[in-house]
Amino acid sequence: MQMRFDGKLGFAGGIIEVEDESVEAGIGREMLEEMGIDPAVYPLSKGDHVSSQPFHCETLPQVKALHFYALEVTEAQIAEIENNARNAIHYGEEVLGWVRVPLYTMTDGYNGFPAFLDNNFVGNARDQLLEALIKTGIMTKEEIDSAVKVAKFSKNQ
Amino acid sequence: MQMRFDGKLGFAGGIIEVEDESVEAGIGREMLEEMGIDPAVYPLSKGDHVSSQPFHCETLPQVKALHFYALEVTEAQIAEIENNARNAIHYGEEVLGWVRVPLYTMTDGYNGFPAFLDNNFVGNARDQLLEALIKTGIMTKEEIDSAVKVAKFSKNQ
Repeated sequence: MQMRFDGKLGFAGGIIEVEDESVEAGIGREMLEEMGIDPAVYPLSKGDHVSSQPFHCETLPQVKALHFYALEVTEAQIAEIENNARNAIHYGEEVLGWVRVPLYTMTDGYNGFPAFLDNNFVGNARDQLLEALIKTGIMTKEEIDSAVKVAKFSKNQ
Repeated sequence: MQMRFDGKLGFAGGIIEVEDESVEAGIGREMLEEMGIDPAVYPLSKGDHVSSQPFHCETLPQVKALHFYALEVTEAQIAEIENNARNAIHYGEEVLGWVRVPLYTMTDGYNGFPAFLDNNFVGNARDQLLEALIKTGIMTKEEIDSAVKVAKFSKNQ
């Protein structure tokens, strides 16, 4: 995930522009701008779609819905993406850095994934992360639920 | 700052080893291991010291105090450090990524620095960040206090 300009963690993304031919093309453009990923090398398909939800925001009236996609890549591709991330057009402005998500819980029962969930996430990025982990089979619904229960942020809600 | 293995934000650091000749030498070794920074190119001096505080932890009885240093670097050096960070020995294990700290507050009064302060920080890393910003003259005590007041985490305490 990225540390955003607003101090919160989130995913690469943005607004579909007039020149984008599809949702996937718009996401591909944002991947290039924010992550330095060439969408020709990492093409998104409709099968990578995770979730969509309605969106209402006074300052962005043209945005009606959020579409979230997850693309599975190899370990070598992750290395290539991380190595190139600093060269992205928006690095240092919209994007303040990239972090991996710890996908484990340490023996104290909190550090690792539950502690990560207590960071400050933009909008529904925290839910999007959880959805993506289930959809890609990285975690089960039960594993997610148990981590969410331990995270302090959830307890406070 | 780094996203740590435990899902929290923190600074590079670790335990002073027997072979370290000084606190500064120990920090230099950790800078190399966690950030890929050559301590010969970026030598720390006693003038870079920000704060020290007593430390008590059952699982680390040998650690008696935390020593925190801040080194001022140029923009070109930041670029070099960021570009090389992924090659650090502990990248992908202890270190899950590096992020810049947003040093501004956006027009809504929360996004930016105050929102960043609502992430999950290890130990006293959040206080260390605030101390370093004052010591280096990047922010005034008044600017820090006003951001801390806006951060939700502080409100909950």
